Amino acid sequence: MKDNCIVAQSGGPTVAINASLAGVIDGVKKSDNYTRVYGAVHGIQGVLDDNLMDLSLMALSKFPMVNTLELTPAMYLGSCRYKLPDYKEDAKPYETIFKRFDDYQIAAFFYIGGNDSMDTVNKLSEYAKEIGSDTKIVGIPKTIDNDLMVTDHTPGFGSAAKYVASTMLEIAHDAYIYYIPSVVIVEIMGRDAGWLTAAASLARTDYSPAPHLIYLPEVDFDKEQFILDIQEKLKTNRTVIVAVSEGIHDKNGNYISATDAAADKFGHMQLSGTGHALECLVKEKLGIKVRSIELNVLQRCAAHIASRTDINESFALGQAAVKYAASGMTGIMAAINRISNNPYQWCIEPTDVNNVANKAKSIPPEWITKEKNDITPEMEAYLRPLIIGEVSLQYKDGLPLYLPISHLI
Amino acid sequence: MKDNCIVAQSGGPTVAINASLAGVIDGVKKSDNYTRVYGAVHGIQGVLDDNLMDLSLMALSKFPMVNTLELTPAMYLGSCRYKLPDYKEDAKPYETIFKRFDDYQIAAFFYIGGNDSMDTVNKLSEYAKEIGSDTKIVGIPKTIDNDLMVTDHTPGFGSAAKYVASTMLEIAHDAYIYYIPSVVIVEIMGRDAGWLTAAASLARTDYSPAPHLIYLPEVDFDKEQFILDIQEKLKTNRTVIVAVSEGIHDKNGNYISATDAAADKFGHMQLSGTGHALECLVKEKLGIKVRSIELNVLQRCAAHIASRTDINESFALGQAAVKYAASGMTGIMAAINRISNNPYQWCIEPTDVNNVANKAKSIPPEWITKEKNDITPEMEAYLRPLIIGEVSLQYKDGLPLYLPISHLI
Repeated sequence: MKDNCIVAQSGGPTVAINASLAGVIDGVKKSDNYTRVYGAVHGIQGVLDDNLMDLSLMALSKFPMVNTLELTPAMYLGSCRYKLPDYKEDAKPYETIFKRFDDYQIAAFFYIGGNDSMDTVNKLSEYAKEIGSDTKIVGIPKTIDNDLMVTDHTPGFGSAAKYVASTMLEIAHDAYIYYIPSVVIVEIMGRDAGWLTAAASLARTDYSPAPHLIYLPEVDFDKEQFILDIQEKLKTNRTVIVAVSEGIHDKNGNYISATDAAADKFGHMQLSGTGHALECLVKEKLGIKVRSIELNVLQRCAAHIASRTDINESFALGQAAVKYAASGMTGIMAAINRISNNPYQWCIEPTDVNNVANKAKSIPPEWITKEKNDITPEMEAYLRPLIIGEVSLQYKDGLPLYLPISHLI
Repeated sequence: MKDNCIVAQSGGPTVAINASLAGVIDGVKKSDNYTRVYGAVHGIQGVLDDNLMDLSLMALSKFPMVNTLELTPAMYLGSCRYKLPDYKEDAKPYETIFKRFDDYQIAAFFYIGGNDSMDTVNKLSEYAKEIGSDTKIVGIPKTIDNDLMVTDHTPGFGSAAKYVASTMLEIAHDAYIYYIPSVVIVEIMGRDAGWLTAAASLARTDYSPAPHLIYLPEVDFDKEQFILDIQEKLKTNRTVIVAVSEGIHDKNGNYISATDAAADKFGHMQLSGTGHALECLVKEKLGIKVRSIELNVLQRCAAHIASRTDINESFALGQAAVKYAASGMTGIMAAINRISNNPYQWCIEPTDVNNVANKAKSIPPEWITKEKNDITPEMEAYLRPLIIGEVSLQYKDGLPLYLPISHLI
């Protein structure tokens, strides 16, 4: 009898991806369908390499261990960037994977990841159908980019947004102290989708209008207009703070900072230095004091300021995935459906992973102002609930107490 | 009868400088010597420009306002980088300042700042002696750089150190997830003194040895040895994480990233790009995956992860300064004297500001390993108590609730 399951994580890290792992472990603990839950180390690669950890003890242990896991950043099981070939062209990895499923009596495989990982879920579930395997393949979303289809938003995004907004407010406090005019440019992650950059708008308070300008990759970026925008804002603001996506590009599709660009295995461009490029531009054109700040990986790993809403939702998605598999579903992803903004209400629903794999969701054009340098109140109303609530981290020796990841080091 | 006082802030921001301001306000509230406490907006410049805020209402208001101020980052009163001339060469600004002191019946002036600000305290107290003014001039230290003389450590350093250490641990979690070898270089503030870079060592846990290497400006940096150090660490670590000061320099005193260097008004070099320069070096020499992260201003403004120890000490220094002035002292700075590491015990003592002004404290050579790429356990024992304890911030709409700074915007 097949009665165990495997869970794995893939793609880039977020603050909430371990909360979904904790949710799967908790779901298995509460389920009658599965005996053991294995964690594949380094994603699907861990299944291929037979690198599995028995997480059942964690499931059976007292709650605090799962609770600490829930608040630990990045990926407890490690990641991979392995892209499965089409099984009609190369069935070998599929044979290895399903052999492993047989060996370990795996009734369900849970994959926590972004749209590349949902491609893996899609391919594995199709192959399972092809060979008549009844192992259920279920996806659990995650990405700080918030660019997955169907799900209202993605686990990990809310915490990254809370980090970006809080940090932007703190940067504003830092920048306002001087009395000479200055410009601060904050570069935020999001190659093709500007959701996280837009979340910088949540930093605005009664007293602080920062960021004064927001530039997103969904619209073309015009360097001359950018300088005009800053000049306009400088008329009424001594300090102008700008939020800019790493992925902004001109009308020909060229990234503003293309010098360091290089394609990765999935054909994505690796960007860096957009903020620095704009810093040089402002210095050259306006001769004003200017600083650029790249939030870098901190926005995806600063678990000490995670969003409670995000962590709770990510945990619930992990639990739901276990229920879906136990009820016989496969080739699906657990998705968040927003019922209302105010009060904020949501539920979880399954969606065919075909609707998610290899697709990306951009910000709707109507949520971007016609000047292309800000977002609308509707978008802020969408974003705000996602950063609400704080986590209660434990600290030891002055440091956040996270679950040790010795097996990855 | 002179019975009011002025407080002002100067230099670069820290997370704890408003805690010292709150301490001054609290000290005045509890003192019988002063009626009103004015805040000079933008440091000594605010005194010159007659830009004063009456903070007495805040002193008289219920505790929460001072409590919120205590946890608000950067400088509630704004900053300046004004350097007083020698009064023997140009007495004009002094005349304006002491005329202002007379106009507002100022019996004490409190200046919260670093060694440049202590130069101002020194000059003002000497001028007061020269003209027979009995206005007391008292300094309160602050700097994330921890490079002030006499005081065991500086307010703002502990919080910056806690941010650096916590962030370094989170970066480590983020970096360990992949199974290909990689190098991460984290650039930390500290032009001439490596205290804050050394604090990255506090990120080390039972399971994570990151940072594997630490490079400080107190010793010469050798690019070839740096590459050899990384190669050596890569033999036993898949991921090598490096903490590096922005101010590292070669044996001839040239900064490793000198291209962007430019001198500010005090003759200090403005640095940026050290981490990026080393990233390029590692990429070129080792052809390995490498990322650089510049912590930038976040290390001096991330109040949401302030050190409770640091905030308490900063507050107490503000209170002590009021007591010193009231007891007739002038030309002094309130300093922290450490009594013991374990248990951590300290007290506050006055020191002649001449011992502090325009001087800088480097890391003692015996606290740096002979390989010049790490610190000793003695240094860690010195650093650890400073990051202990967390603050309980209030949040509103998902954002940390800080005291509005509308008067600066």
